[in-house]
Amino acid sequence: MIAGIIGAAGYAGAELVRLLSAHPRIKGLSLGTVSLAGERIENVYPNFLETVSSPLVTPEEVIAASDLVFLALPHAVGEPYVKACFDKGISCIDLSADFRFDDDEESFKAWYGKGFIIPQLRERSVYGLPELNRQKLKDLAASGPVIVSNPGCYPTSASLGVFPALAKGLFAGGAIIVNSVSGHTGGGRDLAKASHFPECSDSIFPYKVGAHRHAPEISRTLGIMAASNGAPAPGVVFTPHLAPLNRGILSTIYIPVKSAAAPQSAPRPPSKEIEDRAAEIRKLYADFYRDEPFVRVLPLPHIASTGRVRLSNYCDISVHLDMSGSTLIIASAIDNMLKGASGQAVQNMNILYGFGETEGIGAIPALF
Amino acid sequence: MIAGIIGAAGYAGAELVRLLSAHPRIKGLSLGTVSLAGERIENVYPNFLETVSSPLVTPEEVIAASDLVFLALPHAVGEPYVKACFDKGISCIDLSADFRFDDDEESFKAWYGKGFIIPQLRERSVYGLPELNRQKLKDLAASGPVIVSNPGCYPTSASLGVFPALAKGLFAGGAIIVNSVSGHTGGGRDLAKASHFPECSDSIFPYKVGAHRHAPEISRTLGIMAASNGAPAPGVVFTPHLAPLNRGILSTIYIPVKSAAAPQSAPRPPSKEIEDRAAEIRKLYADFYRDEPFVRVLPLPHIASTGRVRLSNYCDISVHLDMSGSTLIIASAIDNMLKGASGQAVQNMNILYGFGETEGIGAIPALF
Amino acid sequence: MIAGIIGAAGYAGAELVRLLSAHPRIKGLSLGTVSLAGERIENVYPNFLETVSSPLVTPEEVIAASDLVFLALPHAVGEPYVKACFDKGISCIDLSADFRFDDDEESFKAWYGKGFIIPQLRERSVYGLPELNRQKLKDLAASGPVIVSNPGCYPTSASLGVFPALAKGLFAGGAIIVNSVSGHTGGGRDLAKASHFPECSDSIFPYKVGAHRHAPEISRTLGIMAASNGAPAPGVVFTPHLAPLNRGILSTIYIPVKSAAAPQSAPRPPSKEIEDRAAEIRKLYADFYRDEPFVRVLPLPHIASTGRVRLSNYCDISVHLDMSGSTLIIASAIDNMLKGASGQAVQNMNILYGFGETEGIGAIPALF
Amino acid sequence: MIAGIIGAAGYAGAELVRLLSAHPRIKGLSLGTVSLAGERIENVYPNFLETVSSPLVTPEEVIAASDLVFLALPHAVGEPYVKACFDKGISCIDLSADFRFDDDEESFKAWYGKGFIIPQLRERSVYGLPELNRQKLKDLAASGPVIVSNPGCYPTSASLGVFPALAKGLFAGGAIIVNSVSGHTGGGRDLAKASHFPECSDSIFPYKVGAHRHAPEISRTLGIMAASNGAPAPGVVFTPHLAPLNRGILSTIYIPVKSAAAPQSAPRPPSKEIEDRAAEIRKLYADFYRDEPFVRVLPLPHIASTGRVRLSNYCDISVHLDMSGSTLIIASAIDNMLKGASGQAVQNMNILYGFGETEGIGAIPALF
Repeated sequence: MIAGIIGAAGYAGAELVRLLSAHPRIKGLSLGTVSLAGERIENVYPNFLETVSSPLVTPEEVIAASDLVFLALPHAVGEPYVKACFDKGISCIDLSADFRFDDDEESFKAWYGKGFIIPQLRERSVYGLPELNRQKLKDLAASGPVIVSNPGCYPTSASLGVFPALAKGLFAGGAIIVNSVSGHTGGGRDLAKASHFPECSDSIFPYKVGAHRHAPEISRTLGIMAASNGAPAPGVVFTPHLAPLNRGILSTIYIPVKSAAAPQSAPRPPSKEIEDRAAEIRKLYADFYRDEPFVRVLPLPHIASTGRVRLSNYCDISVHLDMSGSTLIIASAIDNMLKGASGQAVQNMNILYGFGETEGIGAIPALF
Repeated sequence: MIAGIIGAAGYAGAELVRLLSAHPRIKGLSLGTVSLAGERIENVYPNFLETVSSPLVTPEEVIAASDLVFLALPHAVGEPYVKACFDKGISCIDLSADFRFDDDEESFKAWYGKGFIIPQLRERSVYGLPELNRQKLKDLAASGPVIVSNPGCYPTSASLGVFPALAKGLFAGGAIIVNSVSGHTGGGRDLAKASHFPECSDSIFPYKVGAHRHAPEISRTLGIMAASNGAPAPGVVFTPHLAPLNRGILSTIYIPVKSAAAPQSAPRPPSKEIEDRAAEIRKLYADFYRDEPFVRVLPLPHIASTGRVRLSNYCDISVHLDMSGSTLIIASAIDNMLKGASGQAVQNMNILYGFGETEGIGAIPALF
Repeated sequence: MIAGIIGAAGYAGAELVRLLSAHPRIKGLSLGTVSLAGERIENVYPNFLETVSSPLVTPEEVIAASDLVFLALPHAVGEPYVKACFDKGISCIDLSADFRFDDDEESFKAWYGKGFIIPQLRERSVYGLPELNRQKLKDLAASGPVIVSNPGCYPTSASLGVFPALAKGLFAGGAIIVNSVSGHTGGGRDLAKASHFPECSDSIFPYKVGAHRHAPEISRTLGIMAASNGAPAPGVVFTPHLAPLNRGILSTIYIPVKSAAAPQSAPRPPSKEIEDRAAEIRKLYADFYRDEPFVRVLPLPHIASTGRVRLSNYCDISVHLDMSGSTLIIASAIDNMLKGASGQAVQNMNILYGFGETEGIGAIPALF
Repeated sequence: MIAGIIGAAGYAGAELVRLLSAHPRIKGLSLGTVSLAGERIENVYPNFLETVSSPLVTPEEVIAASDLVFLALPHAVGEPYVKACFDKGISCIDLSADFRFDDDEESFKAWYGKGFIIPQLRERSVYGLPELNRQKLKDLAASGPVIVSNPGCYPTSASLGVFPALAKGLFAGGAIIVNSVSGHTGGGRDLAKASHFPECSDSIFPYKVGAHRHAPEISRTLGIMAASNGAPAPGVVFTPHLAPLNRGILSTIYIPVKSAAAPQSAPRPPSKEIEDRAAEIRKLYADFYRDEPFVRVLPLPHIASTGRVRLSNYCDISVHLDMSGSTLIIASAIDNMLKGASGQAVQNMNILYGFGETEGIGAIPALF
């Protein structure tokens, strides 16, 4: 199979190049660019020297040469390429936000400033969070080419951390707080003051507080997850931060839960009762994800950390209970370039084509 | 005035050495140690070569030589030195937790594993958060030697971020979430796996989730702040994290507030109404701290960042409102070694002795 | 084949676990420890959770279970295990320095404080720098079990950078300066003040200046390389440094070369003549390593950087000439945990067993 | 005194703002910009909020308002402003390279691509390395306004490390190797791929190998230093690197010295003879800089490290001898923004005006 990547010179695109070059089912790559045509991938990313050697061609050439196309482009520019793929009869995996709001053009317009260019494409799209939509993706693909809308990095870490609580009815109502910290690769290859080393090294700060585009995506996904249990959509408060990391997102998630404990006049270290309840919920999470190849619910005393999923497609989840018993605290860690972007895109490809789901993305996390 | 420091070889102690060496009111230092007697401070911290040259002597020698003693010791070992200071008739500023629960020995015992050694010392102690207790400290000092109980680093950033919301009645009830990220200096000079470079570089992770000793301290302080407005103590959920920073704590705080806005079916970018409400609250915060020399409530579009308070005694606070209008989001940043420890201790000394409050700690934050 | 690792809980051992777990020729691992018996590898390194699950057993059990044994132990403790392997009739790959001075016990004694424990083992050992000794290793292995003495991290980056200059007679005599900078993983898992985050973050410093154990190893290897061209051993001046990196060693190497250029009264930007000469030498280097699978001689304008070999077994070399034409400047970058330790050990295993030389270690360098 | 800064929005300019705002002899600042007129300094650098509040005005306004002008501009644009200062009768301290080659326009032209705009200004300029030219600066200033040409960052660390060896006749001839590593603040505020966090974090690499503009500056300064001892100019080989630091330059310098030791067949740990010789040279260095307020020659066992001069104007020098005794190894560490730029500029101002030389720049290095 020949895989095409449009936007191969961006970070997510280049990470796809790295992964797909070593994927056992991929026989060749066609690498495309919108802005760097004429360049070679190994000159843009010299780590590819002697390992991947390829010119960057036009999107049209990519589509013509490929059996499947990954779109790793900015938002709101890729639809015509999707259309061209469909015209040729092949599927796309889109890493932008263009198809993440397929039943809600109003939300997309409100956050991305544009409506859908070719609305009818939405009939063939599916939100590619495998843990939620694996079967839906397979079903849709049975009837022809599809668009897999690859989830955002923050939404992946947040949604996976909350899913069991919603599906199992733990959530007591109110707002779910998602406090997320990302490494700077999340901002991509474009130079930005916030990622200029002297400005960001040794510093942590939130950004776009109360106004980040991933908030509605998280909200929408949690709503779907809650609905699967017949529950109403939870309120979501989401704050993204940047810390001096390269790879990694850690979401610390606060979920109000029903508590049997009496309220405390002064906080005390966790009681046996609280620890037992935490263990129950941990087991519930572990059971929920038992068959998922890329979600690890950590046993005690391990705590999720971005350093332990680095360079892997894992989402590590640790489950905690506040000492009062009324707030479930979930730490959810991913490598933003893998499970948060390109790794999940390959996972979706594997599902789409019936390959082994871990093929090409089964790397053990790096030790450091 | 001669200032003594017991525990001068620890990080907080050494930072006190750096600050007090340049303080215009301090004529000399007496540096003490419990474990490194015989060493010299400039060999333990070679950055002091040619600038501070001093042996490390016994705690008894420090007390004998000093007009004021800073205690920068582990928890639950310093009371006898406080007693010795009182016997001599001089005040102490204690950076440990020993006097932070002075009206609640049960909480201290529950979290620190020991009761008070000399309970009556509590009659002369005050929790040294100047923005809360400046007058109380002055009043107590008018009648003799005192113990200033210097607040913890996390509690300082958290309490200052919440104080106006409680004092001005914005808090709508429920739990306040405090999500804090600290640099590794917070763990001190003792070697620890969590701060071994290969284990912590390029990684962020929570620790002691639902069970950190600063939770009851935050809870207690917020309770006092709420009570000043006749309100009940808020519930607090606190999660500390470590990120690859040296200095700095960022607390991102989620406070439920009364909202006039109708609930949203799908999140939208902040409306004019929400932005206006955020501006009102921002102004309320700015007014609240108008006369405070070390709290900066940032105007738009600035957002609190640890990188912008580095090497200074400032607490930077930025005020945000979630797009639904129901959650106030406060980002509160300090240098954990200054406002979070040694700088605040010097601020307390300045207040105690009637010096200018910014003397010796007025450094402009480093650019990088 | 079953591979054993004694010292699996150290950094180099654990990196071997990661690599060998995914090696297509290895059917099983036996993991041993000297100090942590009873523990499990996935609890020591939680990144292994759900991917590698194994108890840590005794060295004796490892030897009994294995077809080949990797020794990832401190210096001067492993010889008895080598002897035990030989008694069983199997080969060893030793990552310590114990066999790096096999014809020079005096040097080993001078630098490591002990003589050889079982001198006759040296008859079956070979210094495992494949680019120098690939054939020698194969030849020795033809007659029975061998000890592959895996080179040190600094010596690997230094020797590969100098080899062509010595083999091709470019070296003009005098001292070769090797200025090397390592990441903190090189110091291993043991806690050390120099690798305590607050002490080492944002700081670069040399250590063991003029007295590091890798100096004699570099010296000895360069002597062998020079002798292959009938030239005398060069003097070597070696200075190691630590910088705030996790993985990576960069050696910047200064080699006096014969220059046709007239000396300059004042330095000028490189002339056409100098650039042409640099290009000639670059081609000579590229030709020299043309068939080596893991040495990349970078074309202009690329410069060796640790960031571009991360997580790979490559040694990247860039070739430069000082503007006067009299000093060849080589930048040589490796991942210290791979080509500098465990990756090279696997490369040696591949050679020893006639596997494809890149099997299991062919990963494309990570982008970041 | 009113100090003006043209280029106040660049990193060196802003660091001058920070230093001069707290300088006891400066009563006011006038901040100028070429490109950001209309902005305010505290919005460009929010760390200045509530501490420095000032508009950025035109260079002409700065000159009109000031008693002394600092020029923190790119190379080859500042001469007209110097001329305007002279027309007004006031002195300048220029942080660019424009006046560093005052007796050698050919070199300046060769490296900076332009000749002198106003050649006669050179009659009133002096290279502001206080340890070399303190008296020369005072003498020239006695006869009217001067231009202090502030040295480059790399040349400062290199020259101070070599000066005693040249002045005391230790240098045995041949090339002096200067291997320097800088933090990313050295590249300034302009965004650059080499300082984009994901590209540079966890990576070290050389740049402009054999072709950096600071090579001729180092060469020229060392030539002057050698000439003061009647010796010929040494050859200099200089390689700059970038490492993931914010502040700091470490130069590791290799100086051939006359050796009494017999050459070694195999390297051995340093002998008593070598250690004694190293101690002699260390003492010679210490004596040479005994009266210098900002050079610390470190006693054993301390080694120069950028982390120990951070935020200070110190140059730390540690003196080592290679085990063969033939190469003197000097480690020289500065904070590139202070002794390497703005701190040294203030030191020059202090000398120029007869202030105490450490006024405003006497900060003890930060601990971390």
